[in-house]
Amino acid sequence: MSRRMVLLTWGNSNPRTAKTATGLLRYCGDECLAVLDPDKAGMTAQECLETGGDTPIVASLSEVDSPRTLVIGIAPPGGKIPSNWRAVILEAIASGMDVLSGLHDFLSDDQEIAAAAQAAGVTITDVRKNHFKSIATRTQLNSTCCRIHTVGHDCSVGKMVVSLEIARGLQRRGRDAHFVATGQTGIMVSGAGLPIDCIVSDFVSGAAESLVLDSQEHEIIVVEGQGSLVHPSYSAVTLGLLHGTQPHGLVFVFEAGRTTVGGLEHIPLPSIAEQIQLFEIMGGIYQPCRCIGIAMNGRRLSPESAALAAKELEDNLALPVVDVIRDGPERLLDAVETFCDSGSWQLPADPKT
Amino acid sequence: MSRRMVLLTWGNSNPRTAKTATGLLRYCGDECLAVLDPDKAGMTAQECLETGGDTPIVASLSEVDSPRTLVIGIAPPGGKIPSNWRAVILEAIASGMDVLSGLHDFLSDDQEIAAAAQAAGVTITDVRKNHFKSIATRTQLNSTCCRIHTVGHDCSVGKMVVSLEIARGLQRRGRDAHFVATGQTGIMVSGAGLPIDCIVSDFVSGAAESLVLDSQEHEIIVVEGQGSLVHPSYSAVTLGLLHGTQPHGLVFVFEAGRTTVGGLEHIPLPSIAEQIQLFEIMGGIYQPCRCIGIAMNGRRLSPESAALAAKELEDNLALPVVDVIRDGPERLLDAVETFCDSGSWQLPADPKT
Repeated sequence: MSRRMVLLTWGNSNPRTAKTATGLLRYCGDECLAVLDPDKAGMTAQECLETGGDTPIVASLSEVDSPRTLVIGIAPPGGKIPSNWRAVILEAIASGMDVLSGLHDFLSDDQEIAAAAQAAGVTITDVRKNHFKSIATRTQLNSTCCRIHTVGHDCSVGKMVVSLEIARGLQRRGRDAHFVATGQTGIMVSGAGLPIDCIVSDFVSGAAESLVLDSQEHEIIVVEGQGSLVHPSYSAVTLGLLHGTQPHGLVFVFEAGRTTVGGLEHIPLPSIAEQIQLFEIMGGIYQPCRCIGIAMNGRRLSPESAALAAKELEDNLALPVVDVIRDGPERLLDAVETFCDSGSWQLPADPKT
Repeated sequence: MSRRMVLLTWGNSNPRTAKTATGLLRYCGDECLAVLDPDKAGMTAQECLETGGDTPIVASLSEVDSPRTLVIGIAPPGGKIPSNWRAVILEAIASGMDVLSGLHDFLSDDQEIAAAAQAAGVTITDVRKNHFKSIATRTQLNSTCCRIHTVGHDCSVGKMVVSLEIARGLQRRGRDAHFVATGQTGIMVSGAGLPIDCIVSDFVSGAAESLVLDSQEHEIIVVEGQGSLVHPSYSAVTLGLLHGTQPHGLVFVFEAGRTTVGGLEHIPLPSIAEQIQLFEIMGGIYQPCRCIGIAMNGRRLSPESAALAAKELEDNLALPVVDVIRDGPERLLDAVETFCDSGSWQLPADPKT
């Protein structure tokens, strides 16, 4: 049943901040009725968010036909909602809509919002809310499922998009591939997964491992990455996810032209080559783990500059470099299929046995 | 005011499992009245826990003179209490004692225990309970505080002990040194700190950074490490703490003779040299970070074997190797003082300024 979603992005209707909205528009477009942003009303999603086609941007809920779910369409650092959104959320609840949120600050813990939801008989779903408390033990991984993991040089560079493009692309090719969501938007898109960045740190690898165990009946899984190993704030999330996933193959995702950490511009990013090496070292402690392809997010560059940059990197690193949005994922799919079919990754799950 | 503590270790009165009890006996001995373990009653703490001298092990609370605090003396993986402890905890509460716990499963969230505590007017303190939600931004670190961080090859090898020995040893030498607690026992010993392994993963580095910012008026801080970068379950904790601390100097702690991950014996540990290199690489992404000394926990070896093993490692790695329990911390203190006084670590806090 369609969730008939309205995506709230008021004041943040740009593709960088409105990650959740753009993810849903791109991968669950038929469930998205409208984007809510009074400042951009009358424009289309495509014009503001670079995806979503003609999906209208509206000024109020009353303009939408039978909406069923209000979605918090942004994922701000630290996870707090803009203060002027409260009235919109309460209006949605009063009109009988459910609310779907990926914020760190749980709406269901907000007294006013929780009371309103109870009075209206609607559901508040905080996809980051969890009580996961199991540690990774690395005892049950099989050797028939090829584990691909998207990693990257920073947050918000497109790891979820690349993961979905690879999993869906492989499915189109008839492969038994499966997307494993680890972030709030991926969970909203796929209806499953765990919010890795909101798991208590002792259990991060356990959460990642549980996602793998739950999906390793598939031939290929693509586990969505988070953050980066060099991120000053979020590297714990990245390493716990890497070690819990124990990937065989990595797809490295980066945004061309980004030279400093997003939101922490006083901190320069190490080079792509250095970062890939870090991931291979940290991912390869107990089993071979190598980078098999690179996804370049070229949105800061013209198509010509992006193509040149991709070509240069491809020559330097001897790996395919693909902009999945501009050029489609086909060359990356070739790399993943070749790797999985090679069988070179099929070591015993336990190196001692 | 003395907390007049009774340390509950029933069924777990050995130095490996009863980490919290041994830490308190070693560093807050004058506040420890007794250890509670009916199976070992009549013995001394020293006999069972290798520390604590004549502190008696008793069979029941009634044997202790005016106890004020019951301490959960173990820190089991996953954090659950043995089922037969519930009656003891309820008895302590009924007799008017406060309860101090470092478990992942919060006693204050247990309905029966919480209700009993409320009825008796006593306090349940879960030192791991926190709502820390700030990210690291690396904007306020100063360049006058030398940051030393104890890291190690596995959990439960003595990082807290080494941290306290270094900080207290430097204080004895007249230095303005300060211990920064990051785990449940260190917090109970020092009365401050944050339980890093129980922070939501997005905020692990932020928590570590906040501890550093709160203590960087000191000349030297010694930040207690957690886990290891190669731990299959807990590496997220370790990396987040490393990146939030941004240490100048590392002291590497290991247990001689341990070749597999504690509790996950199917997983072999990489060598000491390899692990030190991993810590230097991951700690040195944005500033120089090097290992300046090694603390060897020799408890599995005879004194003679331990001395030989230390000498061999010292020759191989060209770093002082010290068993702080058997030999005292002096040679490690020399290494830390020499490093801090060299000033070689005093780069600007922000590499761009």
